[in-house]
Amino acid sequence: MDAILVTGFEPFQGEALNPSWEVARSLAGETLGVHYKIIARRLPTVYGQAGEELVQAIRDIEPRAVVCLGEAGGRTHVTPERVAINIMDARIPDNAGQKPVDEPIAPDGPAAYFSTLPIRAMVEAMCQANVPAHISNTAGTFVCNDTFYRLMHFIAEQAPGLIGGFIHVPYMTEQALNKQAPSLPLATLTAGIRTALTVVASALGPSSVPRC
Amino acid sequence: MDAILVTGFEPFQGEALNPSWEVARSLAGETLGVHYKIIARRLPTVYGQAGEELVQAIRDIEPRAVVCLGEAGGRTHVTPERVAINIMDARIPDNAGQKPVDEPIAPDGPAAYFSTLPIRAMVEAMCQANVPAHISNTAGTFVCNDTFYRLMHFIAEQAPGLIGGFIHVPYMTEQALNKQAPSLPLATLTAGIRTALTVVASALGPSSVPRC
Amino acid sequence: MDAILVTGFEPFQGEALNPSWEVARSLAGETLGVHYKIIARRLPTVYGQAGEELVQAIRDIEPRAVVCLGEAGGRTHVTPERVAINIMDARIPDNAGQKPVDEPIAPDGPAAYFSTLPIRAMVEAMCQANVPAHISNTAGTFVCNDTFYRLMHFIAEQAPGLIGGFIHVPYMTEQALNKQAPSLPLATLTAGIRTALTVVASALGPSSVPRC
Amino acid sequence: MDAILVTGFEPFQGEALNPSWEVARSLAGETLGVHYKIIARRLPTVYGQAGEELVQAIRDIEPRAVVCLGEAGGRTHVTPERVAINIMDARIPDNAGQKPVDEPIAPDGPAAYFSTLPIRAMVEAMCQANVPAHISNTAGTFVCNDTFYRLMHFIAEQAPGLIGGFIHVPYMTEQALNKQAPSLPLATLTAGIRTALTVVASALGPSSVPRC
Repeated sequence: MDAILVTGFEPFQGEALNPSWEVARSLAGETLGVHYKIIARRLPTVYGQAGEELVQAIRDIEPRAVVCLGEAGGRTHVTPERVAINIMDARIPDNAGQKPVDEPIAPDGPAAYFSTLPIRAMVEAMCQANVPAHISNTAGTFVCNDTFYRLMHFIAEQAPGLIGGFIHVPYMTEQALNKQAPSLPLATLTAGIRTALTVVASALGPSSVPRC
Repeated sequence: MDAILVTGFEPFQGEALNPSWEVARSLAGETLGVHYKIIARRLPTVYGQAGEELVQAIRDIEPRAVVCLGEAGGRTHVTPERVAINIMDARIPDNAGQKPVDEPIAPDGPAAYFSTLPIRAMVEAMCQANVPAHISNTAGTFVCNDTFYRLMHFIAEQAPGLIGGFIHVPYMTEQALNKQAPSLPLATLTAGIRTALTVVASALGPSSVPRC
Repeated sequence: MDAILVTGFEPFQGEALNPSWEVARSLAGETLGVHYKIIARRLPTVYGQAGEELVQAIRDIEPRAVVCLGEAGGRTHVTPERVAINIMDARIPDNAGQKPVDEPIAPDGPAAYFSTLPIRAMVEAMCQANVPAHISNTAGTFVCNDTFYRLMHFIAEQAPGLIGGFIHVPYMTEQALNKQAPSLPLATLTAGIRTALTVVASALGPSSVPRC
Repeated sequence: MDAILVTGFEPFQGEALNPSWEVARSLAGETLGVHYKIIARRLPTVYGQAGEELVQAIRDIEPRAVVCLGEAGGRTHVTPERVAINIMDARIPDNAGQKPVDEPIAPDGPAAYFSTLPIRAMVEAMCQANVPAHISNTAGTFVCNDTFYRLMHFIAEQAPGLIGGFIHVPYMTEQALNKQAPSLPLATLTAGIRTALTVVASALGPSSVPRC
């Protein structure tokens, strides 16, 4: 059985939890049909380091697809990201205190990479499952985008058989009780991501080919 | 066993459903402890008529408490309303085509009535149950506020032993799939209102006294 | 020449300025036609004390109308308020450290008072002058609503010939540079309030009658 | 005297005007210091055609810099865009009835181009002038992004000496009177863009070099 690697981040900005990791660990060990198993990893909310740990996990696990999850406080929908851009620009420090301004991630890399996940089909499947979802055209310029870009850069340069991308999730309800911000229950977020991963698994098909 | 009357509205503004009624009918027939049973009624989204049908239902059912539910598209939280104001002011026509501007509901009535439900305790209980909730200070000036005001005016004048109020709920997820608007699953809305009603039942206590 | 009293508040919540006072002092001394002169006063952002200073100013100045201004960060439009409600409920401390929860302003007062300003005509005149404006149905439950309620309660009990009300203004642009919040330039806010006051002056008409 | 080409779009989506063109034509003919003159052109809100007319205008005018403006209803700030992406994805039809879904603009082009305008300095200068501004990381996927991408693609392939980019502006106040949306007066938008163009002119310096 092949692996689909799903990552979430550790909490940041004073939050006690991060819905991206809560979702990822809820799904860890589940199978998608008979061909794929979900393997979950937690990444640090740190520029660069998250991408390095992600690449190491890819080398260790040799997944067929990589789906990174991140928190997007303030969003109302689960949002597969369309594009990662080659910039780091922080309004708050990351969990290691870094706060880059307008710096490239890869000085010699392209301006951007598109997700290679079937984002349109993922959105449609989530909506059919009553999980609010739409495509997002920006993953921001914080650690989420940084990790997404580093993932796609690695794939482009060293793992052309792999597909990958990023999905932002809203706050889970626990986080929004004292905020004037939208949220969805963890169960809804998890159901949405499970649905999206099923679409990814379908897109991969049953065959197991060499990768990395 | 005494009744708690819970109402929802029919759909309006082109929507196929109204979460307030979906919640109310989900709860219909449930019991709250050993003393109270939930009775649900659907009201028309029509100025005046909704209040008349509500009053008639109160006369028929003789409930101990009345909790009207309404849809507040765009809100993120379940919001018990603090106050009903003596005004009708519509930006869209109601379901009978009425579109009053700055008209009083009861020309001789007071400017406003406060809810007599335990709104603070209801909010706290919903938050403890992980349902995003806060108190709202305006029920608007459409049919929701109109019905809320007519309820409280009836109570003040003819049913002083009755307690009553209004709770707005956000869109349910089905409604928000193609909107950029916050939503919560029906199950979350229903769980939140059940929790709020449990607080109402506790506030009423076990004794059954004459009312109306 | 009779007076129209216009008040603004001192800054709060860490802001360096309060647009309500910036507008009020910009208008101080201006005349509205041949009959009215604008007199401006700054009020403390303190529950109770603001209302007391306002009442004292009314006794001193003997205005024909009172228009209190307040800041509503996050709003997009200039918003004459429809109604003041009899409650104090703070999410942040006022400038004296008070943070009341669900307390009545006047234990024996009515639930609410409506503004006696011509709010519909004020909004229409502002929009004709290209200043975004609409009626608001809640002044919140912080010091703004508290002052508005105390004003209307004083008028109802001791100054029936006086008209009064409250207008919230958005952030001015200086405040929003580093926020993701809407704003309007001070010149636009000032033009809007001047337009609204002209409507108030027209509604008063030329005659000077005893009041207070 | 060299030219800086500033473009705006015709109205779309039922609006009577487009603030991007109102700003551009307000600035037409103005000089920036002694070296640069602003030349304004209006573009159709049509995928592809806007870019073609823009390229033709560049060939005719031979500007030193190109700054395209567009309307971003719902935004609160003037927002220089960081990046144009190689995708057309419309939620509403353009003014020629086209409604592409997930189509590349240039099938052989890169995923994205970064603006070559000094966007950080432009934002800082606008804020110092009390015009709310911040960098945006998405120009969307409608005609604005399409035109921005085609501009940068043309520059990359055929006019390497030229600098260019895109700035979104919020609604002007006239558009927001009957909407619950943020807006800024035309005078503020125009002042902001003039300030941004002054920064562009400074970045270009005085020398006139061949281009295109």
